[in-house]
Amino acid sequence: MAFTEIHYEVADGVATITLDRPHRLNAFTYVMRGELIDAFDLADADDGVRAVVVTGRGRAFCAGADLAGGGETFDHRRTGEMYAGQDTVDGSPRDGGGTVALRIARSLKPVIAAINGPAVGVGVTMTLPMDIRLASDTARFGFVFARRGIVTEAASSWFLPRLVGISQAMEWAVTGRVFPADEALRGRLVSRVLAPDELLPAAYALAREIADNTSAVSVAAIRRLMWSGLSASSPWEAHRADSILMNALGSAPDAAEGVTAFLEKRAATFPMKVPGDLPEAVPSWPDNPYE
Amino acid sequence: MAFTEIHYEVADGVATITLDRPHRLNAFTYVMRGELIDAFDLADADDGVRAVVVTGRGRAFCAGADLAGGGETFDHRRTGEMYAGQDTVDGSPRDGGGTVALRIARSLKPVIAAINGPAVGVGVTMTLPMDIRLASDTARFGFVFARRGIVTEAASSWFLPRLVGISQAMEWAVTGRVFPADEALRGRLVSRVLAPDELLPAAYALAREIADNTSAVSVAAIRRLMWSGLSASSPWEAHRADSILMNALGSAPDAAEGVTAFLEKRAATFPMKVPGDLPEAVPSWPDNPYE
Amino acid sequence: MAFTEIHYEVADGVATITLDRPHRLNAFTYVMRGELIDAFDLADADDGVRAVVVTGRGRAFCAGADLAGGGETFDHRRTGEMYAGQDTVDGSPRDGGGTVALRIARSLKPVIAAINGPAVGVGVTMTLPMDIRLASDTARFGFVFARRGIVTEAASSWFLPRLVGISQAMEWAVTGRVFPADEALRGRLVSRVLAPDELLPAAYALAREIADNTSAVSVAAIRRLMWSGLSASSPWEAHRADSILMNALGSAPDAAEGVTAFLEKRAATFPMKVPGDLPEAVPSWPDNPYE
Repeated sequence: MAFTEIHYEVADGVATITLDRPHRLNAFTYVMRGELIDAFDLADADDGVRAVVVTGRGRAFCAGADLAGGGETFDHRRTGEMYAGQDTVDGSPRDGGGTVALRIARSLKPVIAAINGPAVGVGVTMTLPMDIRLASDTARFGFVFARRGIVTEAASSWFLPRLVGISQAMEWAVTGRVFPADEALRGRLVSRVLAPDELLPAAYALAREIADNTSAVSVAAIRRLMWSGLSASSPWEAHRADSILMNALGSAPDAAEGVTAFLEKRAATFPMKVPGDLPEAVPSWPDNPYE
Repeated sequence: MAFTEIHYEVADGVATITLDRPHRLNAFTYVMRGELIDAFDLADADDGVRAVVVTGRGRAFCAGADLAGGGETFDHRRTGEMYAGQDTVDGSPRDGGGTVALRIARSLKPVIAAINGPAVGVGVTMTLPMDIRLASDTARFGFVFARRGIVTEAASSWFLPRLVGISQAMEWAVTGRVFPADEALRGRLVSRVLAPDELLPAAYALAREIADNTSAVSVAAIRRLMWSGLSASSPWEAHRADSILMNALGSAPDAAEGVTAFLEKRAATFPMKVPGDLPEAVPSWPDNPYE
Repeated sequence: MAFTEIHYEVADGVATITLDRPHRLNAFTYVMRGELIDAFDLADADDGVRAVVVTGRGRAFCAGADLAGGGETFDHRRTGEMYAGQDTVDGSPRDGGGTVALRIARSLKPVIAAINGPAVGVGVTMTLPMDIRLASDTARFGFVFARRGIVTEAASSWFLPRLVGISQAMEWAVTGRVFPADEALRGRLVSRVLAPDELLPAAYALAREIADNTSAVSVAAIRRLMWSGLSASSPWEAHRADSILMNALGSAPDAAEGVTAFLEKRAATFPMKVPGDLPEAVPSWPDNPYE
């Protein structure tokens, strides 16, 4: 697949997706939107990929929606051709950031954001469904939507309060302020802040920690369990899913290898692959009710 | 509107609501309850109000329910006349603190608590649906209900675990302890602790940050999106609301001005007003199913 | 009741449950599972018990599932006799850790974990529904399931993201790493880290703070309110429960004593007992829909 606004590369079990419009601070476009979705499709389908790292080319992570359209940027009536044929929800074009965020949330592979510079607007909201966010100390963040006359998008009203608590989410969203990496760390938006040249090595170290030690099937199943547990209205739903999956995976080859390797104090070599060996019992990400 | 137990004042785009019974440490009464609801109605209806600051007169924020009724304070059979004509839920009078908390949660304007001293019982639970809580270093907090033989009220079993996590909520609620401002900060109940004379200036600085930089329509819509996203059982509900609102607001005057001003590196002057220009698509706070 | 793998003791209003297989680092077995459930039944039924402390004998808290079965440990087909007659969910045996976790969540008495050493696998997930987790600085934690080829269990996909946020939950679960007490503290999995010889005294001091100052009925009702508030899809559900319980308890003896004692600046002596005096209006823990 030939990409024009992102770069996709797999090495040593880790896929790297690089936002690749450095001359525009990697600003988000309709093209980039589609390429990101395609890249996550590739990573999911490739059983050689155990983790995904997302970063930006140059000095920015992603400056937000590309505002080359000026005051009409968000006016879908005037930019209609751009969205021709796009899915709609109750007559409105589906929010583009949301299509990416929801795709990332249902990724079968864990996703690590290496936020190397400004991450503003959709540049930050697209990272919310990623598993782990690391930031360079040169990163800045902004949920700037209220300063542009629009709203928090990319389903961030669902993700953000579940990541950082509703009060922190409200403060960032209603002020629309741009804030530095240390405020992001204190507010638990990112888990670590690093020197610029330590950022990618730290992201790859995490990816390796996953790739070298865990069962791909376990990780994919756990990822789905967690998101579905967070959505569940009762812990009994989690208990039901646990019971079925412990039964399905407890008798599968990875569990035999995982326990045996542990008892033998050696590294495990898990035989099962994702997506091929994923049991049917893994909770699906809830279907899009608008399609 | 003439208030007797609170003070309401609007200046420079910011409404200040002051709990105003300093001789009783601003203890909460049935009258104060009604006046608070009326004050939030005023602020919502006034398109000159961009943010609300809530504080207390004198050395306390609010000492909790006024206990002048002694051991019968919470006995609705004996205090029936006070609640005559009050809404009921399944035969019980509606919890008074809850009527205030749910009114604040559906405010169209962001709300900043400036907690200037003790905030105990309903004095703290009423602040949970506010967007941002700042505290003086003289503030003390207590979810003291278990020490009075009653229960956490004001829908705090919904709000508190979503603000601070279920474990911190449980520890404060089952011990009923009174704790200082620094424990509130560590536990993420307040976002900042300030010297007493820096508290109101900090609250007004936040209010200004909102009033001077953001679209009123965006802020009102985002506030509703966040609460409704936090209640939603699936991120698809958030995506649906985002798509409709991005479509509605993306072609509205505030978005044109917001993007244009940003590109011209000048302050935006947003033309749209709240409540007048609020799009119908903004999620409503869920209707009271008990009315 | 004679226990063989735990020790149960009540003193001074506090029940202590000690995981008691020190030769196996208190590894979890099917027997221990049943004894834990029975012990929580005893504590709930005994109105002399005001709080429960859970700890481990020897140098570990609980090393996780006992792996004496080797690679077949989690294979229910081969260990079928162990689970003969066990409840099933859609044909799968109910996850054992989950039966314990869900029992602890519906405890009428608050539960304090004193984590004295390694707490790994089900050894840590069983603590998630406890109210307060204290750790010795010798404790280590691990959601190691992905390293054994299985999944996070004990309904931890419901509990963990609600305790520590979804990102922290994901990082620990997808890496499966074992981490020290200070990482647990930073990530808000435990509320305090103490020297080994200060751990149990701190746990008992918390238990005393509850037993000496609060109404048993209030505490039981609040515990149920919080869990049910966290599950509720709307704050109106919390408001409904608050209104009914404030009405039921506001006219009950504990409220009269609680307020009177406060006004007289003396310690309260609450007359009501749990479970005997618990009002019917207390929200029940949601029924198991799979039984």
